[in-house]
Amino acid sequence: MTMTEERLDAAFAALADPTRRAIVSRLARGDATVGELAEPFDMSLPGISKHLKVLERSGLISRRRDAQFRPCHLEVDALDGALDWIGTNRDLWDERFDKLDALLADMRRPISPTGPPNRKERAHE
Amino acid sequence: MTMTEERLDAAFAALADPTRRAIVSRLARGDATVGELAEPFDMSLPGISKHLKVLERSGLISRRRDAQFRPCHLEVDALDGALDWIGTNRDLWDERFDKLDALLADMRRPISPTGPPNRKERAHE
Repeated sequence: MTMTEERLDAAFAALADPTRRAIVSRLARGDATVGELAEPFDMSLPGISKHLKVLERSGLISRRRDAQFRPCHLEVDALDGALDWIGTNRDLWDERFDKLDALLADMRRPISPTGPPNRKERAHE
Repeated sequence: MTMTEERLDAAFAALADPTRRAIVSRLARGDATVGELAEPFDMSLPGISKHLKVLERSGLISRRRDAQFRPCHLEVDALDGALDWIGTNRDLWDERFDKLDALLADMRRPISPTGPPNRKERAHE
């Protein structure tokens, strides 16, 4: 999936904090209430709530409005958007070296009169 | 690779800006000078330099000190650290559903007296 620049800004900014990353990791294992999320941290409920608001605004998590305990839920599409952005750029990096490898392999290959024609050049014939 | 929390904070914060992401994308295709990086943006060289400083401090890019044009270079390990963090948590999410699928498949399977023993339980024998 592709995300707008604004959504990517918000997702990456939300992930730029160790407490918020720990919350995302916990929610990747399953939904949890604010109390359950606060437990492993030496942090007040209002402190955790601030982080949850940042995560909610970024689209990385959602909270059910109607439930008594309002469990938090990871919105995996937002995580995928950030993952895809980095992955795409990682692939671009790899492609440079793949091209270089192919070029070096081509240079090492002995010239053969029976070799196949250059397909790229023939594609427009 | 794993990164310290501080490095992850800095990498994600650096990626939370569209200009800095565009610079990372450009450098994924190959090293570039500040002038080359500034070209596609309606931004002054000092403006671009500010973004480069943030990227440099985050470890996502490096600049050669000795070269006349100081080309910028993507430090792909820092990008990998951010990619791995998101990927690991994405996998945690998938594992939940894999386990659920396996459980449902198990429940649907007819009980067979000739079936194989539970390998996980036997592993510690």
